[in-house]
Order: sequence, then C-alpha cells, then structure tokens
Amino acid sequence: MKFSCYKNDLTEALQVIIRAVAVKPMTPILSGIYLKAENSALELQSNNFSTGIIVRIPVNAEQEGETVVGGKRLQEFINKMTDETVTFSDEDSGDLLSIKSGGKNVSLITMKPEDFPKVKIPETERSFKIATKALRKLIRKTVFAVAKDDSRPIFTGCYFEIKGNKMSLVATNAHRLAIDSATLQHNYTDCSFVVPAETLRGVMFRIDPKDIENYVKIGYATRYITFKFDNVFINSRIIEGEFPPYDRVIPKEFATNVRVDTNDFKEAIDFVALMSKETEYHTVKLNFRDNALEISSNSPDIGDATKSIEADIRGDEVDISFNVNYIADVIKVIDTDQVNIELNDRFSPAKFTEPENENYVYIATPVRS
Amino acid sequence: MKFSCYKNDLTEALQVIIRAVAVKPMTPILSGIYLKAENSALELQSNNFSTGIIVRIPVNAEQEGETVVGGKRLQEFINKMTDETVTFSDEDSGDLLSIKSGGKNVSLITMKPEDFPKVKIPETERSFKIATKALRKLIRKTVFAVAKDDSRPIFTGCYFEIKGNKMSLVATNAHRLAIDSATLQHNYTDCSFVVPAETLRGVMFRIDPKDIENYVKIGYATRYITFKFDNVFINSRIIEGEFPPYDRVIPKEFATNVRVDTNDFKEAIDFVALMSKETEYHTVKLNFRDNALEISSNSPDIGDATKSIEADIRGDEVDISFNVNYIADVIKVIDTDQVNIELNDRFSPAKFTEPENENYVYIATPVRS
Repeated sequence: MKFSCYKNDLTEALQVIIRAVAVKPMTPILSGIYLKAENSALELQSNNFSTGIIVRIPVNAEQEGETVVGGKRLQEFINKMTDETVTFSDEDSGDLLSIKSGGKNVSLITMKPEDFPKVKIPETERSFKIATKALRKLIRKTVFAVAKDDSRPIFTGCYFEIKGNKMSLVATNAHRLAIDSATLQHNYTDCSFVVPAETLRGVMFRIDPKDIENYVKIGYATRYITFKFDNVFINSRIIEGEFPPYDRVIPKEFATNVRVDTNDFKEAIDFVALMSKETEYHTVKLNFRDNALEISSNSPDIGDATKSIEADIRGDEVDISFNVNYIADVIKVIDTDQVNIELNDRFSPAKFTEPENENYVYIATPVRS
Repeated sequence: MKFSCYKNDLTEALQVIIRAVAVKPMTPILSGIYLKAENSALELQSNNFSTGIIVRIPVNAEQEGETVVGGKRLQEFINKMTDETVTFSDEDSGDLLSIKSGGKNVSLITMKPEDFPKVKIPETERSFKIATKALRKLIRKTVFAVAKDDSRPIFTGCYFEIKGNKMSLVATNAHRLAIDSATLQHNYTDCSFVVPAETLRGVMFRIDPKDIENYVKIGYATRYITFKFDNVFINSRIIEGEFPPYDRVIPKEFATNVRVDTNDFKEAIDFVALMSKETEYHTVKLNFRDNALEISSNSPDIGDATKSIEADIRGDEVDISFNVNYIADVIKVIDTDQVNIELNDRFSPAKFTEPENENYVYIATPVRS
C-alpha cells in the first residue's frame, strides 16, 4: 500500500470516522481504523457494532492495499502534521504503516485487516431524502431530551416518524419530550423507527451548519438505518421495541400563556442555576405574575438566588418548579428572539414553543416541591 | 455591613484571593473569604495556612462590618453579574449576605468572622524591592522545575538567593535544575530562603504581564515571606530545611555545543512527544550529528516517530535520551529565537541556555536507556 493525500481531507475524514472508534473496545481491533487504498480513493472505516462509518477521500494511490491502525493515535499524529500533503506506505514491512509529512515521520504498528469487522451496507427496504440542513436542525432540537441511562433502551434514541411528506423526530426520557418536524420534497409511505442518540450526534457532527445545498439519503432496513452523504456512509442499529404514544403527554389546553425574551430568560436561568445545582433535585422556581417571571432557587445550606424578567402573561398566575437543566437545555436550541411558555398549574406539564413555528414542541414535567 | 463596588474591581480581587481558598478544607471556614468593609475600602482575605492573601478594593461603604462567605460560590455568582456595580448588605439578617446587581439577587449563608484565621502581617527582618515584571520572569522560568511530590519538601519550592544587587531563583527535583537571576536597584545583605511553588504561582498570576512600572516589596521574617503589591498582600510560610549546593550539578565544560531554532525544536518535540508518552519513561532520543538534530521516540507496542531539524553543532557527535517533559517544559519558557544546548556524553547532564543571556541556566539529567 502506498498513497498520498491532502492533510485537510484526512483531518476531516478522521473527525467523522473517530466517532465510531470504540473507546473501551471489547477487542483491540475495534480501537482501530480500517484503511483501504483502491482506485485513487482511500476508504476509512470504523465500527463499534452500534454504529459503523465509512468515509472516502481522494488520494494519489501508487499501490493498492489495506491495513488497520489505532484510531486515536492516527488522529493525534495527523493533527500534528503541518505540511499540505501526507504520504502513507507499508512497503518496508507489512507490520508497520509509515506516515510521512514535511519531515515528520511516524511508523505505527498495524493490526490485521482481515480481523476488522467491515461495515455492512444492508439492503434497504425504503429510503427517504432530506436536506442535510433540515436533518441537522431536527436532531439538534430533540436529541438532548433522550434518557441518559439505559434502564429503558427505547428512550435512549430519537423516534423517526415519516408520514407523507413530513418527517418528525421525537425524544423523551418520560419526564420531558421534544418534537420537531420538517417537510420533505416527496411523499413517502408511513414508516417509523428509533435511532440511537449517539449515532445522531455523529450524523449532526458530520453536517457543516453552513451546508445548505446538499441532501442526505436515509435508508431503512429491518434492523438497520443508514445515512448516506456524498462521501460518508453511516450504518446504525435500530433500537428495538415500541416507542410509547407521545401525543398523550401534550396537554390540549392551557390556562396561562406567557411570552418572554429568549436572551433574558437564558441569562436569568444561567444565574439562578448556580444555586439550583446546590439543591437535591436541581430545582428552579418559576413564578408568573404581574407581567413578570421571577426565577429563583433556594438551598438550605447555601442561600438563595433570584432574577426577575419581563413577561407577557395572559391567564392565571402560576408558581411552578422544574429541574433547571430541563429549562436550560431547551433555551439553548430555541432559535427565535422570544419563547412561548404555556402552563396549567404547578402539577401539570408546561409547553415551550417558538412563536409562529408549529413544528417545534417541548414539554417539561414539573418537580413537585 | 453595606457597600457598593465596581464589579470589575471585585472580579479581579476574587481571581487573586481565590488562590488561597482551601480546596479540601480541614474546617468549613477555610473554604470562605473574609470580607471587611471599613473606611471606603473592602478588605478581602483568604488563608489556607500555607498562604494567606489580603486584597483591598475601593468601595462606597454605607455601613461598616465584617463577614465570611463561601469563596468558590461567591466568585461563581459575581462572575454571572453583568451590571457595572454590585451592592452587598447584611442589614436584613446577620446570617445572610445579600448581593444585588442589575436585578440579580443572591443571598449567601455566612460564617462567623471571628472564626476566620486572619492573615498575619509578620514583622519582617529584611526587605527587598524588585520590579514586578522581573519577579514574574524569575518565577516563570524556574518554578516548573520543582518536584511534583512531597518526598523531599525542600524541592517543592524555589530557592531565593539575594547577593548584593542580584536576586536568583533556583528550582530542582534532583533530576533537573532551573536558575534565573535579575539585577536589583539596591545592594542588600546576603539572604536566602525557600518559598512554596504554589505561593509563587499565585504571585506570578497576580502580576499582569504588561505591568512594567510597578514594584513588589518582598519581606523576610524567620518563618514567613511576604509579597506586598499596591493593593495585594501575600503572606507565605517558608519551607524549612537546607537547599542543597546546586552549583555542583552544573558541568564546567562541554564537549559539544549546539544551537537550534526554538520554534523548530518545539514543533519537533511536540510531535515526537505523542510517541514518548506511550513509553515507560516518556523517553525522547536526541541524536546530534551532521548539522542535524534527529528527535525520535520508539514504543514497542505502538511504533516510532521521528523528526529532524537543522542544528549548528560544534564538537563531538552525541546520542542522548531524556524524559520528553524535561525538554518540552524548558522550551516553553525560552524567550529567544534560538536555544543553546551543551552536552558531554549520553550519561552526563545537558545544559540549555538562551544565547547572550548568562542569567538563565537549565540542566537536565538524561534517561539511561
């Protein structure tokens, strides 16, 4: 094997591929990246059995071949290269991959390519096309709401729901829920599946926020879901099981409708969160009255913190408490200058939305204090 | 107690004072900052019994008084304040300190000021005046060489040596040694003492690198050393014991004299260090021959890394190995475009200096590989 490539192409490829390199591998081979030089292209693969990634970059291949080297170390050394091009070869010895760039030489001990579990490209039963920018938004606005622990695996992924020309993503941990939807260019037969949050974070990471031209093709097989970009292919297991009927937790009516400035709300929550984190349930109190939202938190051992912000309140006065992270998380993904908050009483879920955007809904269950 | 002050003054004061707030306090009071409002000034104190710090800032004091609040929390909340001024009061209750700024209110539970161990201002036997900039340089270029472990306490501090109008700082861990000297404006009687590295890092942190006008007064008492700036007073214990005669480890003659570009050397060491860290003793090999310095490292499990740089070599060829951190650390504090390396053989200490600067000397003992 011998080839040369642009350092920048390689750096970008490694940033994507590293996300499926196992951190605590069951066997050493899973800590590796599979490299295959063929037909003026380098194929890189990583596979942790939950997600598999294939990236292709153009190379000047003098001699074809394949090998496996430690992923984290390869990335570290490539990041320290400062020359425009990098040359790889295993001519001298099959056990060492030699990497040279601008006078910097590193030889890495290789693993056997035949031992590497190649990423499967499953036969897909159905496929859906969506703008990369739209998919990125769907993931960003929902994935943070998944369950952090594995006690109910179905809640560790995002539920994809395709109905006609509408694709929705839903994430919940049973105490909060985030839904976002996008319109597709075509109509599709109804389809739904749950994709691991970690895969989706990798997909989101792959998409340049400035990319407004490209599309991604999502392929559905019985146990797998695939994401196909221009030069990146991601194959992920689907989380098996039934996603609960999420519509039921969204209240139909609200007694109180509030609108606040998003930045004011964010700054106030950031401040009071310093006290909330000192409380047992990370509690923050929201008191809605007299055209003001008073945000406060009290820790018996430390003291209390308060900040009031202007609020346009229609309906009943409400005092309600939340886990402060449930509020801080949603403010981060609100893209509008103002945020709507709809409430009933201190025992009922509250709804957070963006004005004039019916696609995005966030529901938070209060802390009973 | 009631006073107002500028948020920026308070932020700067807290950045200095926090360095002597105990991280794992023996008693809760040591995690606190003592505040005393008096005569239009606020005095802040922290004390971890190794170092004590006093900072004064101007305030608008409506009512004098003193209190103690948790240091880390006070700093966190003040950092989140965005208004120009901050108002403190304990009018409502002696047990709570109320802090208000731009609509953000926090009340912190206080501790008893009479329980706080006030920072002592010892009677000093002698004192020395040095430009803040010169002191900062002395500390920066030596303190990294102290011992990281406590097995020989005398090596966990910098040795100060005042002879006539010359002040030298010396740091060693028995395997490496850094010395820097500065000229003072006056002549002083000979004096020497060892100051904890942690205190000196705090002193260095206090000094704005752009400060070229001000002086610091260093006071020596039998068991204490004090550093007096305009509005900051630092009192530190002296490390007791005898500092070994360090001159003996500096070779008088060298068989090989080398000069290399500092940036080239730094970049090459950074690259090869990725392999060195995978070796048992973090070993890096330096081979000096044919007007080149070849820097390399080899790990039996991972592979090897090499980078050659141009070198002006006079004298014998040498192959020598070091702990890579011993080299990386000194390159960081070399201020000249080139660095001199003087060597004898692979068993003998090497000397690193700045061209045309006789004040700075760094000695590194090789790894016997």
